Amino acid sequence: MKKTIAIDMDGVIADVEEQFLSWYHRDYGVRYTREYLIGLNEDNAFPERGVIRKFAHTAGFFQTLPVMPGAVDAVKRLMDNFEIYIVSAAMEFPLSLGEKLEWLKVNFPFIGWKNIIFCGDKSIINTDYMVDDHIRNLDSFKGKPIMFHAFHNVSYDHHVRANNWNEVIALLEADL
Amino acid sequence: MKKTIAIDMDGVIADVEEQFLSWYHRDYGVRYTREYLIGLNEDNAFPERGVIRKFAHTAGFFQTLPVMPGAVDAVKRLMDNFEIYIVSAAMEFPLSLGEKLEWLKVNFPFIGWKNIIFCGDKSIINTDYMVDDHIRNLDSFKGKPIMFHAFHNVSYDHHVRANNWNEVIALLEADL
Repeated sequence: MKKTIAIDMDGVIADVEEQFLSWYHRDYGVRYTREYLIGLNEDNAFPERGVIRKFAHTAGFFQTLPVMPGAVDAVKRLMDNFEIYIVSAAMEFPLSLGEKLEWLKVNFPFIGWKNIIFCGDKSIINTDYMVDDHIRNLDSFKGKPIMFHAFHNVSYDHHVRANNWNEVIALLEADL
Repeated sequence: MKKTIAIDMDGVIADVEEQFLSWYHRDYGVRYTREYLIGLNEDNAFPERGVIRKFAHTAGFFQTLPVMPGAVDAVKRLMDNFEIYIVSAAMEFPLSLGEKLEWLKVNFPFIGWKNIIFCGDKSIINTDYMVDDHIRNLDSFKGKPIMFHAFHNVSYDHHVRANNWNEVIALLEADL
């Protein structure tokens, strides 16, 4: 039986960081860079507090997210050797449910509905691996966690880090 | 730490059987009884094949489901001693996502968003107990399964059966 991987959406296969920067530019007229965000978190990323939460509660935010570079090819390739589950903590943003499902259908049409999970916290998810950018999800995970690089996790080093999808593939295929 | 229970929605806390019967009556003019359904399954429950799938794909079906008798008080009571997760295989019916979330907010407002999971199959759900009416979910479960009575599961006896919510409580509290 194939080993299982829980793959997160926002910040892992969907490039929320790029969307934050471009929506901020659109709404506030300032174009920050990815480098600027490094070491900040989702609460203090921009001078106006709560702007990221506001974006995430806006209709269309999740449906129009850019795909993370390399994610489509990487997930397709991993499916040869692993059973892939897309596991997203979507319940905090009720609007996101339909949008996330639609986004997956458009951008990852090869992922079937049986392999999609929308949850609140991820503590009851039981797979062999988890690829996620959030410490709170990785810390409670019982399998092998892989921390996908994000501006808000650069100061943590207690999980194996992957800086991009090539590094995720290298880590996972080394275990085959 | 409290033990965890994954509780299904349709057929367990939501009375889909009653909704099938009343929608069938509304659309086809015949009022079948719960006894009539016993031993049938979701494909052959009514003379017209596929009628249950058609209902489940109709807007409003999931949002207007009656609450299963005893479910609200039972879940509230179990929360004293267990961590409760509502786990629904909702992905097959994309329309149901928003409706199910709304239904939970109205009928089970004491369940927080962190404790709600919508998935495809349930094989990666890892809790101590699962209360579900579908064999396919119970069979792959690694904890203790409890089969909630439904017309389509009467011929199976390889899981502990609960005929109603009082019996679920008795089974779970006996393990405390």
